[in-house]
Parts: sequence; structure tokens; C-alpha cells
Amino acid sequence: MPYRTTQLKIGDDEYRQRGDRLQAYLDEQGLSGAVLFDRSYILYYTGFAFIPTERPMALVVSTAGEMGMFVPRLEAEHAAANALVGRVAHYPEYPGETHPMQVLASLLREMRIEERVGVDDNGYPWILGYHGPSISEITGGSVITLRPFVEHQMAIKSPAEVALIFESVRWGNLAHTLLQRYTRPGVTETEVSQRASDEATRAMLDAIGPIYRAQSDMGMGGAFAGYRGQIGRNAAIPHALANNITFQAGDVLVTGAAAGVWGYTSELERTMIIGEPTDEQRRLFGHMLALQETAFEALKPGARCSDVDRAVRAYYEQHDLTEYWKHHTGHAIGLRYHEGPFLDTGDDTVIEPGMVFTVEPGLYAPEVGGFRHSDTVLITGAGAELLTYYPRDLASLTLPA
Amino acid sequence: MPYRTTQLKIGDDEYRQRGDRLQAYLDEQGLSGAVLFDRSYILYYTGFAFIPTERPMALVVSTAGEMGMFVPRLEAEHAAANALVGRVAHYPEYPGETHPMQVLASLLREMRIEERVGVDDNGYPWILGYHGPSISEITGGSVITLRPFVEHQMAIKSPAEVALIFESVRWGNLAHTLLQRYTRPGVTETEVSQRASDEATRAMLDAIGPIYRAQSDMGMGGAFAGYRGQIGRNAAIPHALANNITFQAGDVLVTGAAAGVWGYTSELERTMIIGEPTDEQRRLFGHMLALQETAFEALKPGARCSDVDRAVRAYYEQHDLTEYWKHHTGHAIGLRYHEGPFLDTGDDTVIEPGMVFTVEPGLYAPEVGGFRHSDTVLITGAGAELLTYYPRDLASLTLPA
Repeated sequence: MPYRTTQLKIGDDEYRQRGDRLQAYLDEQGLSGAVLFDRSYILYYTGFAFIPTERPMALVVSTAGEMGMFVPRLEAEHAAANALVGRVAHYPEYPGETHPMQVLASLLREMRIEERVGVDDNGYPWILGYHGPSISEITGGSVITLRPFVEHQMAIKSPAEVALIFESVRWGNLAHTLLQRYTRPGVTETEVSQRASDEATRAMLDAIGPIYRAQSDMGMGGAFAGYRGQIGRNAAIPHALANNITFQAGDVLVTGAAAGVWGYTSELERTMIIGEPTDEQRRLFGHMLALQETAFEALKPGARCSDVDRAVRAYYEQHDLTEYWKHHTGHAIGLRYHEGPFLDTGDDTVIEPGMVFTVEPGLYAPEVGGFRHSDTVLITGAGAELLTYYPRDLASLTLPA
Repeated sequence: MPYRTTQLKIGDDEYRQRGDRLQAYLDEQGLSGAVLFDRSYILYYTGFAFIPTERPMALVVSTAGEMGMFVPRLEAEHAAANALVGRVAHYPEYPGETHPMQVLASLLREMRIEERVGVDDNGYPWILGYHGPSISEITGGSVITLRPFVEHQMAIKSPAEVALIFESVRWGNLAHTLLQRYTRPGVTETEVSQRASDEATRAMLDAIGPIYRAQSDMGMGGAFAGYRGQIGRNAAIPHALANNITFQAGDVLVTGAAAGVWGYTSELERTMIIGEPTDEQRRLFGHMLALQETAFEALKPGARCSDVDRAVRAYYEQHDLTEYWKHHTGHAIGLRYHEGPFLDTGDDTVIEPGMVFTVEPGLYAPEVGGFRHSDTVLITGAGAELLTYYPRDLASLTLPA
């Protein structure tokens, strides 16, 4: 081919480098191979996105350099067309007359993966009615967890990954802009969220064109903005579920927006107020901004995740806000909407360039509402770089009553 | 109160009866209590719906008759307002300076749940960056799986549960009617799915009114109809993900529609063809209908799940269709979109009145497309009763080109 087209997706070379690092680790640790069941790990190493069900699927890696997918008959063509692996082995069905784990056991014997097997879970998790034996039961050998290695590898994002996270930010920003524009007293959260999400999704699909792949575990992919029920006094319950509330003057709103692009996501959340804010609303909004800025300043390569949360917790204490605290400062994000490490007093992971975190300390006052912005932040050699660029100030986030 | 209003939701009495049956089972088995982490089990016994994250949550049941929820600070008010339990205990945060499982260990000691503990998983599953010790590690005692008991209890639906599943069918039917109406050559799957799902959701919310609760694990709840990428030749890949394809004359389409109501769901899928079907399309469509009818006839109380799948598999063989087979006949459905038992040659569970199954044998022909209807079917004393009532015949499902 005499030319190439700019690609938004992760290139085959990058998938191969990821697999090479995993194989180098297996060698270092003297493991006979690896079996990974986690959807996000399989997507990370092979580019294959699927919907996990009671039918087990696994990525199998031998130290001889062979990578294979183990799937039900149902997914065989889908995996062969999308997973960057040398072979796809399938079993007929779950539960089936022969348990799928017996078929996996044969594959592992064939690939000489039997003793000291690296795993994420010791067996396929018992979801949606699945049950079955563990890897140590089917191999008769020991298993060693690969989770710390894989999670750390995933935590350091490449330039291509950061580009995809920023692409997610862009379409989350559009969805949020429309959400804010359409929110007014008398309309319901459902119609506003539908309209904003639909228009942003269609714009994204037409802008990126037919190469777009969601590869998302959150439903159909696309762009999304909504309220998750965090409206008025409900805004004080952080993970409330949506209930089609009608907006009223005086409501404190906590939003959420994101988009799924090639499996990657981002997080944008804003606190908005309908009508002129009260003094107490202004006070809590101001502290919430200051809490977030405390975190941005503390997010530096070489610091520990716990240092960031401790700086934020100190601000709560100094300003007598601890009664409004409900959760830590943030979490890593990328292929999963929640990843480790966590910006939490209990997580001493050293912060490195390439990590991407949400920064979202909140204040939850029962009779006033919830106050939380969430920004997606890249760690560079110099410190924190905000990937989300939606306005954060109260004037920009006050809606006409 | 001098009157009562008809309630769509599960009543408090029914939740209590469910808990009583669990406690009777704990007594029978000589267990000291139970710890359940599974979202659908917690919803089943307490009515509390939540989004599982890396922050562990559990329902704790003592044989002394006490039920409690164990949650992070973040979910404390949410659980207290929604879970039908006597107490809500919380830990500050995950990972936190003290691991949440140490806090759970104290709660279990206090409730005298230490030896022979009934569990669904031996520890909170390692999702979204969570890791931690198992229940047997924190109690020092043995664990016994409660999954077969709980799954069987959930598999037999009460009249109130069947009413909610039928409510889900109704709104799935509306979404599907609109999906079919708006699908035509030249428009994209995304715009059709958005329009059908949005209109059906708004109609459902306004028809049911403000008492509506999604309690759904599938995003925001609401009604949905779409294509999941099963369009044209892609229709031969059963679990393909949506890709915003433009409809063309000659496409074979496989749809999916459902709605989330108080946590319950249903399944409606149809094969539709744009333009005059070819002879081969007619032939495969006819066999697909006959496969489904073979299953309906075999679905009788007292038969085994495997009998139904064997009858269906015999039809494939008799008509030389085995090369087009990719999966078993169906699965149970209710609070989860996939539940056991499975209509599968390997599942010998006896079929009982009150069970609800999907019936969805499929034919997947690489150069023609996929052919699958899915209906949601209640088992009564007399046999199979179809809860889904959308037309199944080819004439009704042929769209103008």
C-alpha cells in the first residue's frame, strides 16, 4: 500500500508489545503460561471485545509465545475475526454434555500449561448461572495471580491510549454541552438525557465515520450524558439510580458524561444549579472546587496515591467539612470506567507519568444536595494535565430558572 | 390507611417470605449464617438495587433472624432507604487504611456468623480493581455454597414476579413495534434504535408514572429495542456489537427488545427481512419457526431442560441443519437477563410451573444471515404459555424495500 491512513485505534504493533511484556513476565516468574478471563484484560492484549455471559471465554498464553482464545461455538467467528491471536479453540455450549472447563483442560495440556499457571481468577467467575471447577482443579497444578502485573501494565497509558481517552473526552464534552443546554425547569431528566446523548452519539458516529468501534462494556457504546437521579436533594446520594425527575428551580444537579471509543472511556461530571444559588450552595460549591484543586496540585510523578487523598482529607478537616465526606478522591480510568490505583489514603502506589485518574472529591449535604465535579487527568513529567476541559466555575454552571 | 393502591412492585411480605425460606435453609443445613455478594441475590432478598463497583457490598443473614447490609459510606443512606433489612453497617472506603473485609469480619463476629458460613462466592469478586481476602480467610471457618439453593428459589417465579416480567414484555413490545416501523433502507441502526427506545421509554415512564423504578443493572433502565450489529451478513454472528450500519434491501435483521421494571426483564427477538425474501431466506426462516415450535411443545412440567434441547437438536439433525447450529435453545430469565437453568443437553433440571425461559434456537448461515426469534415463556401446569405476543410469521416481519 503506497500510503496509510491515520488510525484512531490501537495498532497491531502495540498489541504485540503488550503481549511480549506479558510473556517476558511469565518467563521471569517461571510460569508455564497464563489463563485470563477478565473482559478488560482480553481486550487489552488481543483487541477482542465481547459481552461476558455464563459461557466462559479465556485468553490462553503459553511461554512458547503462543496466544489463543478459548470461546463457545457462538463466538468462534467473532473471535477469529477480531482477536489478535494465533488460534481460536471452541467448545460447543455451556453447560453442555462435557463441561467447557474439561475442553479448556485439554487445550492447556496441549499448550503445556499445567504447573505454575498465571491467572486473574482461579476459574471463570460464577456469573449469570455459570458454575464450574477452578484452574487448579483442572490442571492439578498451582496458580499464581497475574493481577498486580496486568493492572500495573494497564495503568501506564501509551500515547495511543491517551489519544483514545481524549477522543472519549471530546464526545463526552459535546454530550454534556447539550445536556446543560436542554436542562430547564419543567422538563424531565429522561428527555434531556435522551436528546443530549442521542445527538452527541450521532455526531460522533458521523464525525469518526464507519471505522468507529465502541468495543465498550457499557451497553452499545456511543456518547452519554445524564443525571443518574442526582437531582435536588437526591444529589446527596452519590450512586442513586435515575428516576425521571422533573427539574425545578433551586435544584442542585450532579451530571455524568462519557463516550466509548475502541473500549476506552473518560469521566466528566459537573455540579449545576438551577436559578440563583443560595449562600450555602455557593459556599459548598467553592469548597468542592478547592478540594479538586488541592488534588490537582498534589498529583505529581513520584508522589503516592495516598498522599493526594491525604492532602484532600486535610482540606476537609481544616474547613470542618468531614461530615459531608463520603468517598476518596478518585480512581484510574481507561478500558474500565473504574481501574486501580485509587486516590485513597490506603493506596500507596507511586504515581507515574502515563497514569490517568479521575479527580472527584465530593461534598454531600443532606438538606442542600451533592457537590462534585469529576475531571479526567493525565500524569505527565510535569504533573497533572486535565484532559477534560468543560467549564468548572459556578457562573458557567448556573442555569436559568 | 382506608384504601390501598394496586402496586406493580414486589410487596414487603414477599421479600419477607423469601428471606424466611433462606433462613429455614440455613437452619436445615446447620449453617451459622450467610454472606451474599451477588447483585441479583441482594435485590431478590432485600429490594435494594445498586451498581456493583470495587467497593464491596454484602447481604449478611444470621440464623437468629437478623438481616443486614454491609456497604461503603458512599451507599449508606441509599441502602438504609431501600434495603428491607434490620441494619446497615458501613466502612469508610475501599481500599482504605483498614481493608473493608476486616470491617466485615467484625460484623460477622458480632452476628455470630463464623463457622460453616453460607456464601455465593468465597469473598467479594475481584472486579474493577478490587482485591482482598476470602470469607474463609477472615472467619477462619469453612464456607458452603448457597448458589444452587438461591438459584432454584429464584427460578420459580411468584405471580407478582410474572406480572413484572409481563410488564417488561409490554414495553419491549412497544419498543419493537416502533423499531420495525422506523426501519427502512437508507436509515442507520443507531437512529432507528434511539428513536424507538426513547419513545417507548417515555411512554412507559408516563404510563406507569412516578412510582416507576428501573432497579436495572442494564444502564438506566427504560425500554430498549435495537440490532446489536446483527444486520445483513453480520446477522450470522450472534453476539456482534452494534456498528451503525445503514439498512439495505435484502438485509436479514435480528432484533432484540426488552424493558427494565423493578429489576425484572424479558426477552423479545425477531428475524426481519427487508424486501421480498429469497427462497433460501424463506427456507431458513421456516425451519427456525419449526425449531421454536418443537421447543414450545417439549416445555412441560416434569420434563427435563435437557429433553427440550434434545428435541430441538433432533430437528436440526433430521433436517440437515447442524452446520447452522451455534447455541442451545434458551435460558431462564427474571432479575438477570441470563439465569439458570438452561435449555441445554447438559442441564437435567426438572422443569416446574413458575419457571420462565427464553426460547431462541437459531440458524446461522454465513452467506445468508442469522435467523432467530426469542420468546419469553412461562411454565404453567398445562405447559408453555408465551408471555411475548409479537407476530412471529414471515409476512408480518417482511419490511418494504
